[in-house]
Amino acid sequence: MIERDQVFRVKTARKAGTLSRLLDAVARHGAHVGEIETLQIHPDFNIREITVIAPSDESIGAITAAIVAVEGVEMVADPVDRVFSTHEGGKLRVVPDVEVRNLQDMRVVYTPGVARVSAAIAEDRTLADRYTWRRRTVAVVSDGSRVLGLGNVGPEAALPVMEGKALFYAMFAGLNAVPIVLDTQDPAEIIATVRNVAPGFGAIHLEDIASPGIYEIEETLDADLDIPVFHDDQHGTAVVLLAAALRAAELSGRDPNELTFGQIGLGAAGSAIALLATQFPFAGVVGYDPLPAAVDRFRVIAGEGRASATSGGEDVMRRVMADADILVMTTGRPFLMKPEWVRQGQVIMALSNPAPEIERTAALEAGAAIATDGSIVNNVLAYPGLVRGALDAKVPRITSDMKRAAAETLASLTTDGELLPDPLDHAVHEAVATQVAAAARR
Amino acid sequence: MIERDQVFRVKTARKAGTLSRLLDAVARHGAHVGEIETLQIHPDFNIREITVIAPSDESIGAITAAIVAVEGVEMVADPVDRVFSTHEGGKLRVVPDVEVRNLQDMRVVYTPGVARVSAAIAEDRTLADRYTWRRRTVAVVSDGSRVLGLGNVGPEAALPVMEGKALFYAMFAGLNAVPIVLDTQDPAEIIATVRNVAPGFGAIHLEDIASPGIYEIEETLDADLDIPVFHDDQHGTAVVLLAAALRAAELSGRDPNELTFGQIGLGAAGSAIALLATQFPFAGVVGYDPLPAAVDRFRVIAGEGRASATSGGEDVMRRVMADADILVMTTGRPFLMKPEWVRQGQVIMALSNPAPEIERTAALEAGAAIATDGSIVNNVLAYPGLVRGALDAKVPRITSDMKRAAAETLASLTTDGELLPDPLDHAVHEAVATQVAAAARR
Repeated sequence: MIERDQVFRVKTARKAGTLSRLLDAVARHGAHVGEIETLQIHPDFNIREITVIAPSDESIGAITAAIVAVEGVEMVADPVDRVFSTHEGGKLRVVPDVEVRNLQDMRVVYTPGVARVSAAIAEDRTLADRYTWRRRTVAVVSDGSRVLGLGNVGPEAALPVMEGKALFYAMFAGLNAVPIVLDTQDPAEIIATVRNVAPGFGAIHLEDIASPGIYEIEETLDADLDIPVFHDDQHGTAVVLLAAALRAAELSGRDPNELTFGQIGLGAAGSAIALLATQFPFAGVVGYDPLPAAVDRFRVIAGEGRASATSGGEDVMRRVMADADILVMTTGRPFLMKPEWVRQGQVIMALSNPAPEIERTAALEAGAAIATDGSIVNNVLAYPGLVRGALDAKVPRITSDMKRAAAETLASLTTDGELLPDPLDHAVHEAVATQVAAAARR
Repeated sequence: MIERDQVFRVKTARKAGTLSRLLDAVARHGAHVGEIETLQIHPDFNIREITVIAPSDESIGAITAAIVAVEGVEMVADPVDRVFSTHEGGKLRVVPDVEVRNLQDMRVVYTPGVARVSAAIAEDRTLADRYTWRRRTVAVVSDGSRVLGLGNVGPEAALPVMEGKALFYAMFAGLNAVPIVLDTQDPAEIIATVRNVAPGFGAIHLEDIASPGIYEIEETLDADLDIPVFHDDQHGTAVVLLAAALRAAELSGRDPNELTFGQIGLGAAGSAIALLATQFPFAGVVGYDPLPAAVDRFRVIAGEGRASATSGGEDVMRRVMADADILVMTTGRPFLMKPEWVRQGQVIMALSNPAPEIERTAALEAGAAIATDGSIVNNVLAYPGLVRGALDAKVPRITSDMKRAAAETLASLTTDGELLPDPLDHAVHEAVATQVAAAARR
């Protein structure tokens, strides 16, 4: 079930209690209320737009009926489905970055002038970084094989998600990002296609590509291309999660080096989280996955480090859970963790969507110091600054040091008892980019 | 040799004749003068920026020396190479087309809202045309194998040219265009790559891809994809050329149906020109190429139509030249046509670059009614409106009827004894789009 944001435009009588009755009617259908905007104030009534976050598409009819049944409330227009109306025509535009006022200008931006720029780049390929948009431009690539909570929906359905990712590159990193959605799910073909289009881009952002194909795709492209290749589902998630974990340690008044970091689920995201955790001064990093193959794969990437990983039955898993002071779960298995397994003072991050391994409130009631679910992990906090930092530093890859710098920056900029900063705060993205570039140059 | 536009910032004494002496010095080096902008006016001197169109890179040093040698002239800054400074950082930007002011907006453009849009498209793929940027977005694809007059310079060097093409899509058609430059020149790989990235685009614009590969690429993609595939070097050129030919007929006071259209050179552009010419009411269309294979290929595409084509030696070519009332040449062979071959009242379009088959002035002196060279064919007149028209009409390909409509529209909007309209006139592009869409719907 996917939540649905719906805007209702209503006329509410200016009588005490009208709005509260309306909100009460909405709440009784399990819906939340978002923005309330007052459009007009009359002596007798107000016109307002109320954004309702309904639990599902199906609930909209009942909510609409409940609203119009409230005394003093009238619907003044058909309810607007704000999500669809916002996505209409797409979320990005390509616009000129030079002024062309006359034929002389045309001679500069196009023939004959452009031939000189081309000739110069033909002599020295690296000049493309200076005289084209390339070094400020990211390809956001997906085959649509594992989109959000939806699964394998294909390239067209992945496109609005990639536009969203690209939108945040523009907003928060000042980068050009272009969604590239692929009509193939074959790893070898994906690799060949991305390699073929790479000369026009400064970085490759891989998104929502299913395992195990994504491993081969990322590793091969990372080795073959001389530009950063970034798999957001793994490394973006890992950076944001580690920032939250650092903050959780701080909020619970403990030093990372006395804490064991536990990771249940060693899929793409889980492995990346555990791997990045080894870059921080935790007392230890322990991983678990029911599939021996996942553990084997993790051991290969992790190498001889401070991370250990095991497979096995529930008893093995419970031992890892019990050992962890900070316990992160990315298993896709709802309600995997029983409240009675929670240890006093544990930090619990149950990230699976749409239902977590343990509900936040249940974990807190069972004694967890801090508990969160997947809604906390907003990758937009990490990837714009990370990729911008890599491009600014002109490095060919995004290293562990750069990811660690991003996570530390995010943690250091978090205030007010929160685990993560506000993703709409531009200063946060700028700081991430600056610190990532500094780490890259070291 | 490529012309070079250079901006000189100079201080010129306010004494009669200073500027004219400066311009004279420039002219003596075979350079033209473009814009002259006065930045400051003082009692004793002016500060001006003068754009000089030098015949080559090498001539800049001598021109600079000649300018500073003029009495009353001082250079106030190092000469700015306006071409390179304009291309710095590229010519395009990707920007948001939606407003994201708060976390509620973020929920709409990204998760959880975007999942509903994705789910809807997964159900019905055609909704991607409505709820993504796809149907307003063109991929401008090149492998860099035949760029302008430069030849096979590769993808990075092709990028500034493709950015230029994309820029004009934005300026004149309100479309998003994305340069895609390819790290392969193998037709099969190009086809596979374009097919793989196609789901994110509403049209494919092929540019500067060498023959014969381009034929297979265009034909295969056109057959395989359900979106317009447009090879600008062929069809853009053909549309602009036919518009100029129609206008030339009009200016010389003759009706197309009493004129024979002759095409010397049946390469990619020449074939497309001859083929499009058959869509107009000329008395006949005759083609010539020294290569029998080119003629055979042309006969296959042209089919049993009103076009005939021959191969053979100079005698055969001269017969075609003599038969043609409108003579178009795309041979790549400088000074192929001797002035004594020109027939009284002929319209001669000698398109090869950098040197034409016959110089404009030589053709006019020899009795041509109208003569032009390749500098007249500015494809920007055709492709933005053509592709926009196809997208507006939601048709899967660009037909001869649509190209004919574009050429007729361009010819009808040309005034003042010109052969073609001003490419900076937005009304021209809008009219082309409208007429192309109307032709597409018929």
